[in-house]
Amino acid sequence: MALAQRLSRVRQHSLELVSPLEPEDLCLQGMADASPPKWHLGHTTWFFETFVLVPAQNAGLISGYQPAPHSWGYLFNSYYDAVGERIARGDRGLLSRPPIASVLAWRQRVDGSLQQLLEGGQADAPWLSLLELGLQHEQQHQELLLMDLLDGFSRNPLEPVYGDGPEQRFAGAWQQQHPGGEPQWLDHGGGLVEIGHPPGDHGFHFDNEAPRHRVWLEPFALADRLVSNGDFAAFIADGGYQRPELWMSEGWAVVSQRGWQAPRYWRDDDAYTLAGRRRRDPAAPVRHLSWFEADAYARWAGCRLPSEAEWELLAPALPQAFGVLWQWTASPYRPYPGFAPAPGAVGEYNGKFMSSQMVLRGSCHLTPPGHDRLTYRNFFGPADRWMASGLRLARDAGRP
Amino acid sequence: MALAQRLSRVRQHSLELVSPLEPEDLCLQGMADASPPKWHLGHTTWFFETFVLVPAQNAGLISGYQPAPHSWGYLFNSYYDAVGERIARGDRGLLSRPPIASVLAWRQRVDGSLQQLLEGGQADAPWLSLLELGLQHEQQHQELLLMDLLDGFSRNPLEPVYGDGPEQRFAGAWQQQHPGGEPQWLDHGGGLVEIGHPPGDHGFHFDNEAPRHRVWLEPFALADRLVSNGDFAAFIADGGYQRPELWMSEGWAVVSQRGWQAPRYWRDDDAYTLAGRRRRDPAAPVRHLSWFEADAYARWAGCRLPSEAEWELLAPALPQAFGVLWQWTASPYRPYPGFAPAPGAVGEYNGKFMSSQMVLRGSCHLTPPGHDRLTYRNFFGPADRWMASGLRLARDAGRP
Amino acid sequence: MALAQRLSRVRQHSLELVSPLEPEDLCLQGMADASPPKWHLGHTTWFFETFVLVPAQNAGLISGYQPAPHSWGYLFNSYYDAVGERIARGDRGLLSRPPIASVLAWRQRVDGSLQQLLEGGQADAPWLSLLELGLQHEQQHQELLLMDLLDGFSRNPLEPVYGDGPEQRFAGAWQQQHPGGEPQWLDHGGGLVEIGHPPGDHGFHFDNEAPRHRVWLEPFALADRLVSNGDFAAFIADGGYQRPELWMSEGWAVVSQRGWQAPRYWRDDDAYTLAGRRRRDPAAPVRHLSWFEADAYARWAGCRLPSEAEWELLAPALPQAFGVLWQWTASPYRPYPGFAPAPGAVGEYNGKFMSSQMVLRGSCHLTPPGHDRLTYRNFFGPADRWMASGLRLARDAGRP
Amino acid sequence: MALAQRLSRVRQHSLELVSPLEPEDLCLQGMADASPPKWHLGHTTWFFETFVLVPAQNAGLISGYQPAPHSWGYLFNSYYDAVGERIARGDRGLLSRPPIASVLAWRQRVDGSLQQLLEGGQADAPWLSLLELGLQHEQQHQELLLMDLLDGFSRNPLEPVYGDGPEQRFAGAWQQQHPGGEPQWLDHGGGLVEIGHPPGDHGFHFDNEAPRHRVWLEPFALADRLVSNGDFAAFIADGGYQRPELWMSEGWAVVSQRGWQAPRYWRDDDAYTLAGRRRRDPAAPVRHLSWFEADAYARWAGCRLPSEAEWELLAPALPQAFGVLWQWTASPYRPYPGFAPAPGAVGEYNGKFMSSQMVLRGSCHLTPPGHDRLTYRNFFGPADRWMASGLRLARDAGRP
Repeated sequence: MALAQRLSRVRQHSLELVSPLEPEDLCLQGMADASPPKWHLGHTTWFFETFVLVPAQNAGLISGYQPAPHSWGYLFNSYYDAVGERIARGDRGLLSRPPIASVLAWRQRVDGSLQQLLEGGQADAPWLSLLELGLQHEQQHQELLLMDLLDGFSRNPLEPVYGDGPEQRFAGAWQQQHPGGEPQWLDHGGGLVEIGHPPGDHGFHFDNEAPRHRVWLEPFALADRLVSNGDFAAFIADGGYQRPELWMSEGWAVVSQRGWQAPRYWRDDDAYTLAGRRRRDPAAPVRHLSWFEADAYARWAGCRLPSEAEWELLAPALPQAFGVLWQWTASPYRPYPGFAPAPGAVGEYNGKFMSSQMVLRGSCHLTPPGHDRLTYRNFFGPADRWMASGLRLARDAGRP
Repeated sequence: MALAQRLSRVRQHSLELVSPLEPEDLCLQGMADASPPKWHLGHTTWFFETFVLVPAQNAGLISGYQPAPHSWGYLFNSYYDAVGERIARGDRGLLSRPPIASVLAWRQRVDGSLQQLLEGGQADAPWLSLLELGLQHEQQHQELLLMDLLDGFSRNPLEPVYGDGPEQRFAGAWQQQHPGGEPQWLDHGGGLVEIGHPPGDHGFHFDNEAPRHRVWLEPFALADRLVSNGDFAAFIADGGYQRPELWMSEGWAVVSQRGWQAPRYWRDDDAYTLAGRRRRDPAAPVRHLSWFEADAYARWAGCRLPSEAEWELLAPALPQAFGVLWQWTASPYRPYPGFAPAPGAVGEYNGKFMSSQMVLRGSCHLTPPGHDRLTYRNFFGPADRWMASGLRLARDAGRP
Repeated sequence: MALAQRLSRVRQHSLELVSPLEPEDLCLQGMADASPPKWHLGHTTWFFETFVLVPAQNAGLISGYQPAPHSWGYLFNSYYDAVGERIARGDRGLLSRPPIASVLAWRQRVDGSLQQLLEGGQADAPWLSLLELGLQHEQQHQELLLMDLLDGFSRNPLEPVYGDGPEQRFAGAWQQQHPGGEPQWLDHGGGLVEIGHPPGDHGFHFDNEAPRHRVWLEPFALADRLVSNGDFAAFIADGGYQRPELWMSEGWAVVSQRGWQAPRYWRDDDAYTLAGRRRRDPAAPVRHLSWFEADAYARWAGCRLPSEAEWELLAPALPQAFGVLWQWTASPYRPYPGFAPAPGAVGEYNGKFMSSQMVLRGSCHLTPPGHDRLTYRNFFGPADRWMASGLRLARDAGRP
Repeated sequence: MALAQRLSRVRQHSLELVSPLEPEDLCLQGMADASPPKWHLGHTTWFFETFVLVPAQNAGLISGYQPAPHSWGYLFNSYYDAVGERIARGDRGLLSRPPIASVLAWRQRVDGSLQQLLEGGQADAPWLSLLELGLQHEQQHQELLLMDLLDGFSRNPLEPVYGDGPEQRFAGAWQQQHPGGEPQWLDHGGGLVEIGHPPGDHGFHFDNEAPRHRVWLEPFALADRLVSNGDFAAFIADGGYQRPELWMSEGWAVVSQRGWQAPRYWRDDDAYTLAGRRRRDPAAPVRHLSWFEADAYARWAGCRLPSEAEWELLAPALPQAFGVLWQWTASPYRPYPGFAPAPGAVGEYNGKFMSSQMVLRGSCHLTPPGHDRLTYRNFFGPADRWMASGLRLARDAGRP
């Protein structure tokens, strides 16, 4: 699909995501880690303005673009230190102004100028890749918007309903890829392997997926489906949340302080979802787990989590690798050997988060179509569990 | 004015207050002490439903009232332990649902049933006084709504504008009552005096204004106007915020921790108001002061704050006693001798807050017309300053 | 007793208090509100050095006094802003140095120079009263030292034993003054009364006890003994800690957050004391209560706490007024009409604490002999309960 | 050296370490992460009692050992969930009791029974390896004791002096191994290498050093000396602590919140050490850096930190690898492929800490002689800097 057309569709998709919302939902921020829907709409727009339109206008590639008021940069910058100060993350919910109408009008102006840039035909490779980055960035925020909304809604005793779409996609995705039942193990003989974005592949990738590099692996096996609600219920029934020997020390402290007894959105025999409260299906993959819970479960099961290299090697052959749930790995989020962040302020996109976080691989049912990729490295802190995370077991080969 | 008519007007006034708002403003909560506009609309309605309509229907005085869903009690209860659990105060901003339309529909149903109760003619004195209490309660929240909104808006770098009304009322009120210039002192000879709501007065009063009781006062004098911006600027210029000897120890800790350098909404030579940023008028009364600041200023000025008895005695002769700013007193908020809280759950209205707070007297420009009263006891914590507070100096008599 | 002799005895008494301690106890600080024993020894010495010896030497009244190293001022200043910066209160336990031997040597040098000052005969009234203030100050810290030690020891699962003395004094004091059994009520007719330090009395008093002033009181009655462990157990058995309607809102929040279920040192049927764990005597006065608990108990009992004026008027006729437990009053700690703090830095002694605290009256079994006084105003925050506090009931007269 | 003799010497060394202390120092705890000296003495003794003596007596290998009072298990357990509850880490400083004499007597009893166990000759391999583990454990705590003491002392404005020994060892170690001056680079060609404890080596190792396993490395080079104070001063002079682009996002937040401007103990041109305040030698290795600072420095220098595999491969040829400072690596602390924790409660020793920490390699001047090892994996959180940490630069090969 041509870039102009994709741009138009991706931008349009953000608007569709907020269409079921009440106006008051637009500023809903359940916690500092999450952002309100209106902020996502504004921030993705700011990204295009800051990294594409203003430089392009300065370079004479477009004209007539009227940037947002200077103060909006303070409101909608997420974490780019090179670009300037910004509102505290936990205060984004306080931005009842600018009103949604102003943000939408801004989106339109930005879209118009982006099309102008594309149509001008003078935007060569560096511009096109910034534009592509903005588009990928907006897709990431589409997923964030929904998971942040779920967090915010979950704090409302009324258990608001967003809509059925995400749950339908979830059920369709996991069922279609694996019927349930006992998991089978896929073996890999290990050895000297390569992971990371292939240099010859000119499709988009984030800087943190490169460079492709060699890794030595011992023989291993991965389960051919994700751990299910039923599996996880057995862990709970076996005292999983009461047995410190199953947990990282740091994780056990979190369990104790926050009183965790189950995955994030479990409520009695139900789970809270974007479709409201729904009965849990034992065969469905368990979701909204922290890394600590995934790690403890794997230990309880006599297995372990896969490393990201193991996952990447077998994923093409694995059901439920994409479109269901992000899958925690055993790998801390660190740079690949030879990693160099993208030049300029967008170098802050990924590189500065490479401490105290763990990698998740795959994609989930909230991920916009076409946004997933074998080498994609998602990352969250080990105690986070508001995103659509699940887990797949791994083990050393040669085990019965 | 008949109760039915007043009820109608007061309820209508709440709606007028939110009419200039954007939908996103309805859930704006700047801090745990403040509440979002929609919550104020819901809570005042809950108060009528809980304390008037449901009991009245149980007593057979009205029929056909359909209460809000049970869960709304959890959402809109403020602090009535006798009535049940409730959402944490700081989480009120998370209630993007129920949407405003549902809250407004609820208001209408409640209004209808309240009129039915009044028209039935069977509502005798206890019912009427609960209804009156609900009405006074709603008026209190009308003032709270505006001061909470100012707090929330003040955290937005865009400095949103609510409207000109409140500032016009402020300017009108203080100028009309006192032209500015050097304050004069009104003397009182002290002696055995009486304060509190007069038993013979059948107008409304809160339980905490009674019983009327005797107090011994030494001769004293009160200033005939409030301390002005210009006065307070002199305090600042004289190092007021840098001199611990002027402050209560607890206040000095607050000053140091929060980095206070001026009253809450001062910004350069302006102040942030509901009308947006406005140049400060040196002659206008200084506002948005904590008790600690008022107390420190008085000490710096060689004076002191008035006791609430002193204030009540001279207020009828004092300009700027009502309609401008609440005035901090030297009196901790404690029960009058012989105080008995109102029976039932509404006894929680005032009585349980009688620790670690200070009394303010008078009323302010945000107070709804007709809601002020000579014996009215307002109260806030000594570090609070988001409300429309000011101060008036007192001194012992016999001073030059 | 001559001042020189009293000085010698008071200073010696501090040393006796620490003689049963292990060296490691000298730096024990259980919480920020409490101080380690060695710090008390140093701080009281610093007080004499700073407010008496150095000024006296500057004035030529003594010579040869070698002040402690300059840095010690930072270590041993408690809260005198006028005198300079100081170590954070909660960090006093970190002062393993200077070692106790150095502190004791300093005490000796200070004692020597104080005697030199007294013997010189040139120390006129202002000097003598500063010296007297230092002595009274040291006596206050003798009591603090023991209550702070109890707090610190109470956090050690070994339940360390300090010694039997304080418990023997406690038992002796309450039993000797009242045999137990049902309390009787002492009536007072109220009227225009006077409280505060009598101007004609040249004995020592703190600035906050003056000026003597008139107060109007309605008729009232006070119980002739303190509330007992048995009385308080009935409150607990009646759900006292589970019924929010009995509590100030602020107190209920404290109860909930800290999980209070009983007075501070109750453990099963015992109480932890400086003599270790001891069986609770139902007839003994209940102790280590916060103001919130005292206030809730009084409400539960259908009574109230006495105002400080009420207490002061009847105390001369009341058993258990002195030497048993400090008694919470209903009075916030605020200045008397006409109050003026002592001149100079010692003006910070009392005046700057007159917010958000409540007055206690009387004295306790830890109070050094001769340190109690009818007009003495002690004060603590309403949630504090590590000091030897108890309560006495009051009620309006005319009740059955 | 025979085990009995080593045991005797190691246990004796702990006592020598505390011999320069004042009694009050024995309970000094500067922060929750650090422990007081007396606690270290008790905890190491508890380790022998719990994991060796009590089981050995139960197994009939020794007799007559009288365990410490049951409550001491609560006091001196560090983090072994399998063994039971324990005092909160930050409260260890509150343990003024048991007094040091009791702890020392306990140590003697334990030492006697350990020798009895050894002399009995029935203690076969599993017992001997638990005994060896206890001995290695005590050596770890000898180093911790000194670094914790430095933290505690550093909070005292008097800048206490422990003694000259550690500084002399530091200076001797770094000077002897490298004269200073520009660092040279040692190259390694990479390839498929092995790291971890060699199976054929029967010397002691912790479980986390095994199993030995293969790793693929690209060609790299390591500097032949540690980064010096002078090097680091250049980083500071170049705005190192003001430039967010040099830092991990998480590290930048720490820098901002804590106001870091230099390594932990730098004070003006000096550094605070166990020998008191000392002038910083520009040629000496910089120490007391967090991982965030080490990582930022490396980025500023155009280099990176070594992985632990890189370090382990070249360490035998590297000056300043051992005995100077622990060296931060780029490697998160995670299990080696095939890792299995030691069986029983001692399995909690290392395995449960494998999240959100970074590996340090080598040893330092505080490490007891004979306790260092090529495969030793030390680990701390990325913001920790109270231990004797430094850094060595790495870079990809082929660079000029």
